[in-house]
Amino acid sequence: MEKPSIPQGTRDFGPAQVARRQYIFNVIRRTFETFGYAPLETPTLENLSVLTGKYGDEGDQLLFKVLNSGNFLVKERRGEITPLVTAEDLDAGHKAVLPKIAEKGLRYDLTVPFARYVAMNRGTLTFPFRRYQMQPVWRADRPQRGRYREFWQCDADVVGTDSLLCEAEIVLMMAQVFNGLGLTDFTIKINHRGVLRNIYQALGGEGNETDLFVAIDKLDKIGRDGVSKELLEKGFSEPTIDTLFELLNVAGSYPEKLSRLLAGFVTAGVEPDGLRPGADSEDESTAFYKGLNELAEVRDILQASGFTQFDRLEFDPTLARGLSYYTGCIFEVKINNVQMGSVSGGGRYDNLTGSFGLPGVSGVGFSFGVDRLYDCLESLDLFTETGETPTRVLLTHFDAASGRAALPLLAELRAAGIPAELYPDASKLQKQFKYADAKGIPLVVILGPEELAAGVAKIKILQTGEERTLPLGEVVGALTV
Amino acid sequence: MEKPSIPQGTRDFGPAQVARRQYIFNVIRRTFETFGYAPLETPTLENLSVLTGKYGDEGDQLLFKVLNSGNFLVKERRGEITPLVTAEDLDAGHKAVLPKIAEKGLRYDLTVPFARYVAMNRGTLTFPFRRYQMQPVWRADRPQRGRYREFWQCDADVVGTDSLLCEAEIVLMMAQVFNGLGLTDFTIKINHRGVLRNIYQALGGEGNETDLFVAIDKLDKIGRDGVSKELLEKGFSEPTIDTLFELLNVAGSYPEKLSRLLAGFVTAGVEPDGLRPGADSEDESTAFYKGLNELAEVRDILQASGFTQFDRLEFDPTLARGLSYYTGCIFEVKINNVQMGSVSGGGRYDNLTGSFGLPGVSGVGFSFGVDRLYDCLESLDLFTETGETPTRVLLTHFDAASGRAALPLLAELRAAGIPAELYPDASKLQKQFKYADAKGIPLVVILGPEELAAGVAKIKILQTGEERTLPLGEVVGALTV
Repeated sequence: MEKPSIPQGTRDFGPAQVARRQYIFNVIRRTFETFGYAPLETPTLENLSVLTGKYGDEGDQLLFKVLNSGNFLVKERRGEITPLVTAEDLDAGHKAVLPKIAEKGLRYDLTVPFARYVAMNRGTLTFPFRRYQMQPVWRADRPQRGRYREFWQCDADVVGTDSLLCEAEIVLMMAQVFNGLGLTDFTIKINHRGVLRNIYQALGGEGNETDLFVAIDKLDKIGRDGVSKELLEKGFSEPTIDTLFELLNVAGSYPEKLSRLLAGFVTAGVEPDGLRPGADSEDESTAFYKGLNELAEVRDILQASGFTQFDRLEFDPTLARGLSYYTGCIFEVKINNVQMGSVSGGGRYDNLTGSFGLPGVSGVGFSFGVDRLYDCLESLDLFTETGETPTRVLLTHFDAASGRAALPLLAELRAAGIPAELYPDASKLQKQFKYADAKGIPLVVILGPEELAAGVAKIKILQTGEERTLPLGEVVGALTV
Repeated sequence: MEKPSIPQGTRDFGPAQVARRQYIFNVIRRTFETFGYAPLETPTLENLSVLTGKYGDEGDQLLFKVLNSGNFLVKERRGEITPLVTAEDLDAGHKAVLPKIAEKGLRYDLTVPFARYVAMNRGTLTFPFRRYQMQPVWRADRPQRGRYREFWQCDADVVGTDSLLCEAEIVLMMAQVFNGLGLTDFTIKINHRGVLRNIYQALGGEGNETDLFVAIDKLDKIGRDGVSKELLEKGFSEPTIDTLFELLNVAGSYPEKLSRLLAGFVTAGVEPDGLRPGADSEDESTAFYKGLNELAEVRDILQASGFTQFDRLEFDPTLARGLSYYTGCIFEVKINNVQMGSVSGGGRYDNLTGSFGLPGVSGVGFSFGVDRLYDCLESLDLFTETGETPTRVLLTHFDAASGRAALPLLAELRAAGIPAELYPDASKLQKQFKYADAKGIPLVVILGPEELAAGVAKIKILQTGEERTLPLGEVVGALTV
């Protein structure tokens, strides 16, 4: 017989791991709910018509597809059987065969199902609609350290408002989660797609900014030289690239960077997106660049909300984010004292539900990667010790009679909400203690013939070896204190 | 554009549904943990080699299979591409093609993955091992009312002990969950495969009891006449069938049925499984029928544990359960005041992990069907009112200034753990109230220019219309009481 195994890139979570993961989920859930986000759950299976084309060509490849059930090779209607897949289809390759044998796929992220849900329920939802979603997603990626084929995302999005309060609240929620988890050495990076667009204009560009965004997105990986080389190949001139890095590398605090970029845009003659509200003539001081202005506003809202961790919030003009649908503020978070990619990110989009027939719904959302957070907490040793069981008390016994006599105490402990077990067999006491030790059960109650005769129980704290003898009627009271 | 949809038999769960489902999960989780069961989670994807053949032919058909990723029609090794599926395979049909294009399937139940987990981790687990698992499963069944293709199971199993304490605790856990959910009109039916085997022997049968079990299992659906007809066709004689129904229909309380069946077995000359412990000669009163004896023992343990709901516990010799792997006590629960199949069931098995190379591990387990419990609670109107949001307080505002002035109070409420929102846009007050109403937010705080000038806030309870004006500094205190 073959030894049983689980598919590559998937994991079993034993008791201690589930407890630790639940701890992370609870901190995130509590934060989302405190900010008024309501839970949504969508099916694991989605129609491929919903998923395909939403994640780019690479995404389409990485979607797990589910074979149609029954005889997937034929179509049966009124007893008539027609072959669906022909030898010609085989010759044409898997892309020709796929749509004939698979109609469903596994959830690939939480954003597309959310957009599908909003579009399907537009008539009954109350906008602005705030939802959070904490579910697994599946990607047929090559598994490697920290990258799984089944992994968990925790998303919060609000749609139906373009208020910048929502952006500020994302920063507040991020900070609350990381502080709550004890991951206090974090940096929240913020940028705005409008700033990137203005930078592009400062370089004399117009229209398609994608080449620039894609190159900047790689700055972390390939460095300034790599990005320069790529931009030269794309037709950018050397002086243009120098200007680019001057703008990207503005130094100073969040507000200082904002004003230095503003000066840079004015110098470069970038056309403002409008006038600063209240201004009536177009001069330098009233030039209104939407990106810079919104970033200033988000900071103001944070300040008015009593946010104090501005040393953890960095305006980073080089932050680009990969996803094409972002249109406004974008976010990304790193934990500084761990070697790990970003653990959270998000941004504003103007047209998420457009592909499902509901255009013009603006929203902003962000996501936590639970598996990466788990790894961060583990490598910083921030998990509190977790046993292999919820049980707090093990009742031991010697024979059928003492086992039977322990049952009322067992019931009493459980009624008081204390997870408790009676060792099921009258094994040697040593074996019962070994069991408690291996599972991490902190307390053992000894109910031997002597104790029973005296109407008492002996309680032993395994970690210290401390023992206490109590009247049977006082055990539950002593343990609930 | 096609209107987006979700696959047949799957569901989106909106905020109110998620809250209600979480309520059910929490009652079950608390019960499992109080009894010392520890959480386990297994992957959604399992290898088909693990799943296939475990659920019978019908089960194999109903498994959702996942297409191999990439080009599933060919095998690529060291740059050499070999076709996997040929035109001859197509002619041979889908059963020939399937193993070549799909290696993985979706979890079909929680028992097989549990057995696989125990077998894979035998070296590191501490036995007896108690685990619970609450996860979705998928079956390509024809969807109908109350039957879904994605649905949730909550299982608890203990393996590595044959103590009947575990059987008794299953009854205790079932009762705790149904009482906890307010589904107080339940009946827990209990039987024992040994009793059914003894009944079969009383009819003069030996060897394969399956025909009998399968027929009895249909009693609910096709009645005594239907079962008789089926047994006649299988070669049972009319007098035998009469004896069968005499035994199956023994009347009385749980202990009365036990002693009447014992008398029946002795009369019919059924060979005992041994002697009653302590007895030294074989006569009627010491004849030991394992099934009857274990059922008596389970009842004794319940009594010693202080269990009082014996009117909810019925020994039903006609209970057969479909699954073939049960060997000892079997359980099934119905809610009497709702039209609904069984909402819970389980039993003891002697060799669950045998097919994964780990023979002789006895265990006992049971399962709750969350979707059916949900439907029961809904049709009995037992859910407390749930809003569409966790938000308790909506702060309204009139303009940018009053919106900004509301931020400290908003932060204060959240810091006190009170889910709160500031309406993100300075819309008409009526619109903001309508929003609170539609979402089921109970409290609205009005912070207008007048209130701000006076340093107060007006709090309105939406359901009663009651209003209160409080100094700003006292709002959080008043709401946390």
